[in-house]
Amino acid sequence: MNKNRMEALTDGIIAIAATIMVLEIHAPDSFTFESLRDQVPAMIAYLISFLLVMLSWYSYHLMFLHVKRVDLRVYLANTIWLLVLTGIPFATSWVGRFSNNWQPELTYLLITALWAIMYTVTSHALERANPELKKSVNQESVMGIIFRYTMLVGSLILLPFWPPIGLFSTLVLMIISLMFNFRDEKRAHKNHSI
Amino acid sequence: MNKNRMEALTDGIIAIAATIMVLEIHAPDSFTFESLRDQVPAMIAYLISFLLVMLSWYSYHLMFLHVKRVDLRVYLANTIWLLVLTGIPFATSWVGRFSNNWQPELTYLLITALWAIMYTVTSHALERANPELKKSVNQESVMGIIFRYTMLVGSLILLPFWPPIGLFSTLVLMIISLMFNFRDEKRAHKNHSI
Amino acid sequence: MNKNRMEALTDGIIAIAATIMVLEIHAPDSFTFESLRDQVPAMIAYLISFLLVMLSWYSYHLMFLHVKRVDLRVYLANTIWLLVLTGIPFATSWVGRFSNNWQPELTYLLITALWAIMYTVTSHALERANPELKKSVNQESVMGIIFRYTMLVGSLILLPFWPPIGLFSTLVLMIISLMFNFRDEKRAHKNHSI
Amino acid sequence: MNKNRMEALTDGIIAIAATIMVLEIHAPDSFTFESLRDQVPAMIAYLISFLLVMLSWYSYHLMFLHVKRVDLRVYLANTIWLLVLTGIPFATSWVGRFSNNWQPELTYLLITALWAIMYTVTSHALERANPELKKSVNQESVMGIIFRYTMLVGSLILLPFWPPIGLFSTLVLMIISLMFNFRDEKRAHKNHSI
Repeated sequence: MNKNRMEALTDGIIAIAATIMVLEIHAPDSFTFESLRDQVPAMIAYLISFLLVMLSWYSYHLMFLHVKRVDLRVYLANTIWLLVLTGIPFATSWVGRFSNNWQPELTYLLITALWAIMYTVTSHALERANPELKKSVNQESVMGIIFRYTMLVGSLILLPFWPPIGLFSTLVLMIISLMFNFRDEKRAHKNHSI
Repeated sequence: MNKNRMEALTDGIIAIAATIMVLEIHAPDSFTFESLRDQVPAMIAYLISFLLVMLSWYSYHLMFLHVKRVDLRVYLANTIWLLVLTGIPFATSWVGRFSNNWQPELTYLLITALWAIMYTVTSHALERANPELKKSVNQESVMGIIFRYTMLVGSLILLPFWPPIGLFSTLVLMIISLMFNFRDEKRAHKNHSI
Repeated sequence: MNKNRMEALTDGIIAIAATIMVLEIHAPDSFTFESLRDQVPAMIAYLISFLLVMLSWYSYHLMFLHVKRVDLRVYLANTIWLLVLTGIPFATSWVGRFSNNWQPELTYLLITALWAIMYTVTSHALERANPELKKSVNQESVMGIIFRYTMLVGSLILLPFWPPIGLFSTLVLMIISLMFNFRDEKRAHKNHSI
Repeated sequence: MNKNRMEALTDGIIAIAATIMVLEIHAPDSFTFESLRDQVPAMIAYLISFLLVMLSWYSYHLMFLHVKRVDLRVYLANTIWLLVLTGIPFATSWVGRFSNNWQPELTYLLITALWAIMYTVTSHALERANPELKKSVNQESVMGIIFRYTMLVGSLILLPFWPPIGLFSTLVLMIISLMFNFRDEKRAHKNHSI
């Protein structure tokens, strides 16, 4: 299939999913700053989700960078990855309204975890379609995966005691993942491989 | 005309149509999981419609893959195909709210059937504009077409007795169509034609 | 400037403007077909506006097809063309709700007329930026322009007596314009110029 | 990373952010022109914001035009630039409803100022990633920067006395910036550098 068109369709859906979340933050019915106060949790949830989508896109697009062949299996994995992504605006809106309740926070955690799983599934489909690639297309290390799931399990345990751990652990995971991305880029730059 | 720009505009509209459907699934006014229960039919309708749009796009983009020339007739057929597509969010929203009534289910069935018809119309316009193509651009076999319309007529007959057949038969048709796509890709891969 | 990026941004805005209009057609609060009846004028207005945007895009993209240089003047004209375009969803929504009143119909007529004027302004900016082009980039003939403005003036006169003339004359103009486009394409095909 | 995909994702988000603002201008519940009157401030705010986004895009895309390498630092700066951009629809909607109050006008001013700051941050990241570039990628002169911040401070001082200065100074700044862009393009054209 046409890799470029698949990438363009994917980027279109990502751009929309990242942007429509902001529609949930309505202008208040009054001109005072006090009227903004109710929107602060929704703004924080939007901020985290927007950065999550954009930073995940960065890793995701890197996977496709050196790959030549995409097939129906890759397209299907990519489609389900996108389907889970379109659940993030819903989860963000819900958690933004009830950030102190464990049900929306749990939903948010599970959707972002499912999204990470679909990321791995897509990377396997990509490797299968491109057997000539020497190293894995998915840069995530075993250490990274262990860390990610330890954080998830830890957050699930803490959730009943402090519900905002859902959003908070997503933010922490994102910052750590960003630091690893910077390190990987520096290494790749030294090896002239990018 | 410029094939690339037509494809990019088409992909933009598809990305938006596939994604705005999720806006219909509002975060509930309460934090409980019970409050999500009312949204379940809407979520199922969204899931089916999103996959329908994405999998139809796959076949649709294959049609254009080896084609060199697009003309006004192709563009017009593509435009009406897109127009019918933009009816899917409406039908999905309606069927998601009243999934046990035959009127929304019938509307959903008819819009998706009309969409399939416009697909065939576009394939004929493409063949007409590219007479040098040896084989048909539309991969759908006679068997596939007979099956599709048998399913449609069968669903229409069952509709008064079990309205959800509308969404359900769309899902079944999609899964079967996906299996055929996998088979076609495997064959094409053997023949080195992709 | 980068012509490809300008075209991509333009196509993105057109795709969104054409598609968000359908968000105005909400699923009714009941499952009966009777409840759809109130939406019929909105659906007709959407149908006409969607086709208007898509067919105008066809002519518009042809203007840019053989052009090499776009400058700030072209970009500015294109931006105002897009700004007027984003008024069409508003006018469509208003005329769809009050199709028997001259005020929304007049607004619709004026916005689409202003859009046609910005089309001509953009074509002049394109010719100015590309003086080496032998023939005009704007294919619209003098006959076509006279016809367009005669229709507009005629519709304005008839508006107080039969308000739906606003939408109706847009549809007629679109069909005639489409016929001319088919004729032009046939001619160009004979001359091997496309 | 892939510069083209980053640009395409960026343009997608810009196209959506510029267009969804118009969704805030609802068709009135009556057919009279009087009913439009309440929407006039929202329309003016939309007009200014749409032009601001489109004209900022022009300068922004110029920065990337001759640049070869984008890295994670550039991507991160670009992402935060986009994040601030998605705050403009919110600020536009609020200032459009309460254009005579200093709180929404101040918010509007601060978000657009923050956007300009992120523009500069992105330009520094671009220069860092492309040390071989002889001249600065950011065309903004020292004069321009002094002027911009003088206008901002002046507007902040005048804000309590005449709140609409927020929107008004944005418009003035935009027109002046446009004039400078025209001058720069003319100069570059003479030097054959574009």
